[in-house]
Amino acid sequence: MNFKIVSYFLGWVLKIEAVSMAIPLLIAICCGESSWVWFLVSIAACLAFGIPMTLKKEDRGSFYAREGYVITALGWILLSLIGALPFFLSGKIPSYLDAVFEIVSGFTTTGSTILYEVEPLGYGLLFWRSFSHWLGGMGVLVLLLSLLPANGGYNMAIMKAESPGPSVSKLVPKVRDTAKYLYLIYSGMTLAAAIMYWISGMPLFDAVCIAFGTAGTGGFAVRNSGMNDYSTFTQVLITIWMILFGVNFNVYFLLVRKKWKDALKCEEMRVYLSLIVVFIAICTFSTCMHQNVTFGYSLHHSAFTVASLITTTGFGTVDFSYWTESCKILVLFIMFCGACAGSTGGGFKVSRLIVIAKEARSELHLLIHPNAVRPVRLEGKVLDRNVVRSVNSYFIIYVFLIVLSVFIVSLDGFDMETNISAVFATFNNIGPGLSRVGPYLNFAEFSPLAKLVLIFDMIAGRLEIIPMLMLVYPKTWRKHF
Amino acid sequence: MNFKIVSYFLGWVLKIEAVSMAIPLLIAICCGESSWVWFLVSIAACLAFGIPMTLKKEDRGSFYAREGYVITALGWILLSLIGALPFFLSGKIPSYLDAVFEIVSGFTTTGSTILYEVEPLGYGLLFWRSFSHWLGGMGVLVLLLSLLPANGGYNMAIMKAESPGPSVSKLVPKVRDTAKYLYLIYSGMTLAAAIMYWISGMPLFDAVCIAFGTAGTGGFAVRNSGMNDYSTFTQVLITIWMILFGVNFNVYFLLVRKKWKDALKCEEMRVYLSLIVVFIAICTFSTCMHQNVTFGYSLHHSAFTVASLITTTGFGTVDFSYWTESCKILVLFIMFCGACAGSTGGGFKVSRLIVIAKEARSELHLLIHPNAVRPVRLEGKVLDRNVVRSVNSYFIIYVFLIVLSVFIVSLDGFDMETNISAVFATFNNIGPGLSRVGPYLNFAEFSPLAKLVLIFDMIAGRLEIIPMLMLVYPKTWRKHF
Repeated sequence: MNFKIVSYFLGWVLKIEAVSMAIPLLIAICCGESSWVWFLVSIAACLAFGIPMTLKKEDRGSFYAREGYVITALGWILLSLIGALPFFLSGKIPSYLDAVFEIVSGFTTTGSTILYEVEPLGYGLLFWRSFSHWLGGMGVLVLLLSLLPANGGYNMAIMKAESPGPSVSKLVPKVRDTAKYLYLIYSGMTLAAAIMYWISGMPLFDAVCIAFGTAGTGGFAVRNSGMNDYSTFTQVLITIWMILFGVNFNVYFLLVRKKWKDALKCEEMRVYLSLIVVFIAICTFSTCMHQNVTFGYSLHHSAFTVASLITTTGFGTVDFSYWTESCKILVLFIMFCGACAGSTGGGFKVSRLIVIAKEARSELHLLIHPNAVRPVRLEGKVLDRNVVRSVNSYFIIYVFLIVLSVFIVSLDGFDMETNISAVFATFNNIGPGLSRVGPYLNFAEFSPLAKLVLIFDMIAGRLEIIPMLMLVYPKTWRKHF
Repeated sequence: MNFKIVSYFLGWVLKIEAVSMAIPLLIAICCGESSWVWFLVSIAACLAFGIPMTLKKEDRGSFYAREGYVITALGWILLSLIGALPFFLSGKIPSYLDAVFEIVSGFTTTGSTILYEVEPLGYGLLFWRSFSHWLGGMGVLVLLLSLLPANGGYNMAIMKAESPGPSVSKLVPKVRDTAKYLYLIYSGMTLAAAIMYWISGMPLFDAVCIAFGTAGTGGFAVRNSGMNDYSTFTQVLITIWMILFGVNFNVYFLLVRKKWKDALKCEEMRVYLSLIVVFIAICTFSTCMHQNVTFGYSLHHSAFTVASLITTTGFGTVDFSYWTESCKILVLFIMFCGACAGSTGGGFKVSRLIVIAKEARSELHLLIHPNAVRPVRLEGKVLDRNVVRSVNSYFIIYVFLIVLSVFIVSLDGFDMETNISAVFATFNNIGPGLSRVGPYLNFAEFSPLAKLVLIFDMIAGRLEIIPMLMLVYPKTWRKHF
């Protein structure tokens, strides 16, 4: 383990956090909120550690995949521990663990909250909460890569560790340029969403914060009433933007380059959109049948909910805890699916689903034609056996971590629906679950142990497990291989 | 598809069923029960189809893996459709679907019932119900293979299709001899169990039926009170025999051959026994902590329940529906684990668990040492990549069938705990689930659609999915490849 380079990158993460906190600091000052002091203290803390750590760059020494994983995992933990300070120091969230839970939920774009009411936080803290979605959505380290001068071979290792999906494709030959393009598209789309929300009648502050939430597929609201104060038209807009932010960003890159045909051919996007249509149809049908509502009402809220869940955003306009039992199972399945790889959404990712489904089909085929050679293809290209293998292993590790988490969380004694959906909602970075953690309730009642597990689940889900497992894998810490 | 050979084997399956039904027929006559007529009618039905189908053996024509799968799947369906007749015709189970559910639950060694009370069935039907466990435990087609003259290359294909586990090992070079050895060990152990139960104070009829249930890891009781009428000593005996029948039969074969060392080295058995010890410890600790019971009581019932669940037998002495939430999650996990491959137990199988766990670990290792070569080993031998691959695919298909089944079953509107545990209990061939399908309740309340799904799950679980999937895979039915 090359500790010097790890420390150098962690220092930069802290400096980025300091700059990011400057915005809510200004907002708090402008609105005359007392929380500005605590933002200042937190910024000072970031800089006090960050500046010495980045003074000298250690270019010598090895940089392998494991350094990339460790930087990513520790970077996110550090980010959260300091990001929670303003909530805790201002006394708005009296428990430090709760404050960490809240900001981890922000950075990992989960959107689960431990707050009963959000409005008492004030503008500064509300902004910081929503802004964390935006930062975490595309990734803090990806942002860092787009800023730092690229003179090491390590960039790809970090990019791989932080970006979601089974394989990372570089849009352009240089990692640094790829990171820049991604952030440009991301910022542009966020701006467009915010303007459209504002024009549709949302207050400006809400429009910006909800745009951050949509872009990062987060899910924190800025009003006690959640999404219910906004007009139906605004809700439709949010639905569309959520779906758009769940698409693989490669598609947008191709669109910017005017490669329309290549963009539309994206297999993952097609499956993702088809899944959305099918899920909306089932939910609309089911709610129409079992609840006394009109077709239009049912379609509107089903579309919003499905979009919110599959992109793992987690905004809510209706309480799906009261849907039928089969719809609840569907809700859990949609939570699991997740959005496209290379988007800001969480979950298992549609491309992984495609790979494991194709692998299972090809396995069936092999059983009756033992000598057949049928490679698994994605986007028309034959997939490397190692990718297929790692997707399979990912699924297995994913399922086992979920089971283990549900077991620990259920020590609190809540019902099975609460426990399973709480873990699903955090691991897949959704936000709300079912029953006691439904869209109109929160995670405050869990014990500290359960909250710790859920915090781990949120980070593991966002970073796709491996970086977090690397932290506890003894061989990672050996000096030499 | 070579239909002639398929029909030939199906005819033999019917003839075996006819012979098997002769025993309950005699019992019914001896006890003066009216059900003997319906056994006679069912036997006549078996023979009416079975004899013409086996008149001429078609030796020519191809016999590949797919014929093996189709014979197994159709054989089990046919067996159940006719095996249900005595229950239905005698009027003891008024609905034919319920009767099929009951006998499928018997043959697949599940033990889920739709009956509120079992004693009204009478001795003949009760015997048939328990005997179906014994027949299904080791497999009807394996029995057939041990009887038929072996002069085709097809035996291995059938053996593979019906036997549980990721890979079938032949004990001796000839499949027919292997099948014979398996049935000899199986019969001997069943006899020993029955005698011990009898000596411990069980009535003879109960001792034989419960021995069938233990041997096949079934779970049907012969009294309304389940296991509660038997003494604690008898319950301890049952616990031990359940665990013994969950061990890979290869171990017993080695013991018979006096290869003590090889037998004890079996990796799967060691993991299986360790899991049992760990699970019993957790359950004992949890019930001791949360219920007002003594340590001895808690240990006794935890051991019985864990043994009953991991071997997928499904006998119950306590209602684990009232255990703590975390224990219920553990119960679901134990249900999933299952017993050893090559035993009569169901579930995912310990050896598959070992393979996917090792594969996941080796994948983690690969992530930091991309060029390392670390093959997955089982029992000290390097596993073929294809076996690892098919175990991974099996897991994926397994999870998706479970999710799909839970979705359909939950259309009935019961709570999530009922739906998930009902599917778990049937797919893994356990028997009782949680909540409304707990150990002291039954499956009668489900709709016909849900029952059909659960019937499919039981057969798919017993035959390890693939044969059932082959039935609906279009390429299976093509005349030529």
